[in-house]
Amino acid sequence: MRKYMDAYDELLARLKDIDLIGQIGGLMSWDQEVLMPPKAAALRAEQLAWVSKTGHERLTDPKIGELLDVLESTDNLDDIQSANVRLAREAYDRATKLPTEFVEEMAKHRSRAQISWSEARAKDDFSIFRDDLAKAIDLARQKADYFGYDDLRYDALLDLYESGLTVSRVDPLFKGLRDNVAPLVKAVIENGNRPDMSWVENNNWEQSSQESLSHSVAEAIGFDFDAGRRDASTHPFCGGPNPDDVRWTTRYSESDPFGSLYGSMHETGHGTYEQGRRRDLDFQPAGKANGLGVHESQSRLWENQVGRSREFCEWVLPVWRENFPNNMEGIDAEQLWQAVNLVEPSLIRVEADEATYNLHIMIRYEIEKKLIAGDLEVDDLPEAWDDMYEEFLGIRAPNRTLGVLQDIHWSMGAFGYFPTYTLGNLYAAQLLEAARKELPTHDEQMRNGEFGPLLSWMRKNVHQRGSILEPAALIEEATGSPPSPDAFVTYLKDKIESLYGIKA
Amino acid sequence: MRKYMDAYDELLARLKDIDLIGQIGGLMSWDQEVLMPPKAAALRAEQLAWVSKTGHERLTDPKIGELLDVLESTDNLDDIQSANVRLAREAYDRATKLPTEFVEEMAKHRSRAQISWSEARAKDDFSIFRDDLAKAIDLARQKADYFGYDDLRYDALLDLYESGLTVSRVDPLFKGLRDNVAPLVKAVIENGNRPDMSWVENNNWEQSSQESLSHSVAEAIGFDFDAGRRDASTHPFCGGPNPDDVRWTTRYSESDPFGSLYGSMHETGHGTYEQGRRRDLDFQPAGKANGLGVHESQSRLWENQVGRSREFCEWVLPVWRENFPNNMEGIDAEQLWQAVNLVEPSLIRVEADEATYNLHIMIRYEIEKKLIAGDLEVDDLPEAWDDMYEEFLGIRAPNRTLGVLQDIHWSMGAFGYFPTYTLGNLYAAQLLEAARKELPTHDEQMRNGEFGPLLSWMRKNVHQRGSILEPAALIEEATGSPPSPDAFVTYLKDKIESLYGIKA
Repeated sequence: MRKYMDAYDELLARLKDIDLIGQIGGLMSWDQEVLMPPKAAALRAEQLAWVSKTGHERLTDPKIGELLDVLESTDNLDDIQSANVRLAREAYDRATKLPTEFVEEMAKHRSRAQISWSEARAKDDFSIFRDDLAKAIDLARQKADYFGYDDLRYDALLDLYESGLTVSRVDPLFKGLRDNVAPLVKAVIENGNRPDMSWVENNNWEQSSQESLSHSVAEAIGFDFDAGRRDASTHPFCGGPNPDDVRWTTRYSESDPFGSLYGSMHETGHGTYEQGRRRDLDFQPAGKANGLGVHESQSRLWENQVGRSREFCEWVLPVWRENFPNNMEGIDAEQLWQAVNLVEPSLIRVEADEATYNLHIMIRYEIEKKLIAGDLEVDDLPEAWDDMYEEFLGIRAPNRTLGVLQDIHWSMGAFGYFPTYTLGNLYAAQLLEAARKELPTHDEQMRNGEFGPLLSWMRKNVHQRGSILEPAALIEEATGSPPSPDAFVTYLKDKIESLYGIKA
Repeated sequence: MRKYMDAYDELLARLKDIDLIGQIGGLMSWDQEVLMPPKAAALRAEQLAWVSKTGHERLTDPKIGELLDVLESTDNLDDIQSANVRLAREAYDRATKLPTEFVEEMAKHRSRAQISWSEARAKDDFSIFRDDLAKAIDLARQKADYFGYDDLRYDALLDLYESGLTVSRVDPLFKGLRDNVAPLVKAVIENGNRPDMSWVENNNWEQSSQESLSHSVAEAIGFDFDAGRRDASTHPFCGGPNPDDVRWTTRYSESDPFGSLYGSMHETGHGTYEQGRRRDLDFQPAGKANGLGVHESQSRLWENQVGRSREFCEWVLPVWRENFPNNMEGIDAEQLWQAVNLVEPSLIRVEADEATYNLHIMIRYEIEKKLIAGDLEVDDLPEAWDDMYEEFLGIRAPNRTLGVLQDIHWSMGAFGYFPTYTLGNLYAAQLLEAARKELPTHDEQMRNGEFGPLLSWMRKNVHQRGSILEPAALIEEATGSPPSPDAFVTYLKDKIESLYGIKA
């Protein structure tokens, strides 16, 4: 026993060290995105490279492999200890299975590909990105081979962003979703009742008032500003070093007040997850937020399930009025609700509504599967992309920039990442459905701005459970069922019905 | 030769590693002071402790000692190489004399003490800071003992901030200054011709306009805002990771517009020094800014020698008018010059005028000597502080916040630091006296806002010389004479004469 306890203690000490390095990197990256002066970029890259190299050295120390071997030979670990060993093994294997030269090659290629992608996008010319994309796909395949997989190469990539995710798990989820959502979107388009957006589009929305609105809402939801910050940045994100220092950002457009508010609620969802982690598991992988899908469930919950509900709109209307007394004159909660729920097929994923968003993801997922398997050639990709948009959403991009070149992910080598966005939507609906059973007055609470009970439910069932279970098991524990598209489909049907009077 | 070159290259590689760690710590400390959320303090302390411990481990690697031994055995080093070896030796010896656990303890205590100091200050309650201060003094004594000293424990601390500084060097210097300055201050008070301050005191000075004024002036002096930032913090300072990312802060009071402007010019002086370093010596100790006294000479130069000159006031008056059109109506350059040069004993060091400033330093110096020697108990400190203010300046603080709690230094464990402020005043006067010989139209240039020639002189004679020479030798190289109080005393006598018509 003594041997195992000593090994476990030493493992935790080493993991703490690695975690602190990660916290430092988190702060530096936040600073780089939010307020670093422009000339500082080159030396910041050196600092970040140092942090990354130092973290990698500590993680790949053979001593960690030895400690894991010892700990994997005993059955006497409790669930938290087991989780720490499992997660440390996962991190250790990932860090040691890739040869150093291959990691370097990927990093160099990433820098190159981001440049050619930017240029291709700016010039609306896919051919500029073509070779680098082909190489990125090849590197992703090699990466999958280094990590290994049972069935499909693509599985090894999915697993990087959500532990245990495979094509055989995603396919049925996405099929069920598509079968139900596509007809809904079609019905809305045919219905043609676009809500009145003139009061939104014809007004100027001052940034300082948007900031105050976002801040009030984030605070009301339960984000603790004594343990975090709100700032502005070009690309909104939630970062920062640890649960006591959670920093999220948003961006503002004075012609559109919804982008910053719903972006803020999205990041607030990520932020409350980070702030809600179990503090007795500080520095331990078991205490960390779970995979990207679960993280996205928390952001989507507050952004969509709560933020675009009729009850929330009733509660938030006076806050809008306080911040925009002139613009909001004569606007009632029903109009606000209609406007924030505009369903409209569009070409750009990040601007898509709740109903069409997942169709954007499915397109990318189907394309990635084929690219990694070699069933789709890079030269055929742009047309394949446009064809799928026509098939899934009934629209076709007028150029490459609005089509296949819109996302940064592939230039960064992040194949397998997209599906977690849709998983987040499914998990959010499934979690809220489960929460409602214990919160019978949920709608009333939203109408009164009582967000505490819902946040507490998430704290207990999601945030405090950290990564003790794998994502799918966490969802099953919290909701009583394995991940499924049903709750989301029901939610979306109800919503479309009440918004557009369409019975699906 | 090959042996020395290899050793030198390896030494530089290791010094670069250590410097990067220092840059990371610099960013984290800036963040802690300027914008970190309050609850993040405890984990930030852990992060800083990690950085400090890691830096200490790398610096104390015996391999560095071996490399230094090799390099100290050859005469074939040029002046930069010699400086790097000399400075690395100094750092290595200082670091190896402190046990790792002690360094970690100091770092943790520093974070803790800064929090209790802030709270004590906010609540005007010395008792909140009392225990952490007592511990800080104890740690400073231990530190002095680890370093060793010939005569007094305090000497070991003075030496940390200005090489070779001892009580036996400071005592006569300060006595000479006090002998000259105290009668001047007395004469001004007895003279009773207080300049008209009603236009300052009877107006409200909006913060946003103060920010814009400070920013314009810093930019005019030559601070590069693409390689740095201006922010607000409780205790103004200049920090940040490196010459491409220099971050200074100031604080604002709407009843006093001078504090923020002159604070900004002070930090701008520090900032231009950092930005002006030789970039081919990045990551090398020889390229670093010299001791604190020299650093302070650059801040004092712009704050006082330039900023409080009649010519500068003539140039800056339109900038004032632009930012405060109503408040500045009917105010001329002469009135502005009189007001920014008000000589009046006051309680706050950082707001003190040029004539009384050094008396504030002398009080702290006398107190530190006693605290470190054990001749003054922490519980007696607040009263001792007030008594000395009564003795030196004829005034007494009405509360602790304006008294013993005003400075951040002791909470940071920076005992022995204060005297460098006065050295900075002396060096500033001496440097400007020398610069004037090469810049015969200096006064005219100031009147026209042509700050480039003076900044270039400082770049060439101070900034670009880094730490290649020791501080006293640098001053002698730049001015032709060893450090002396003469230029400062002459400058102050001239100024008092022209301001008050007092012949000293």
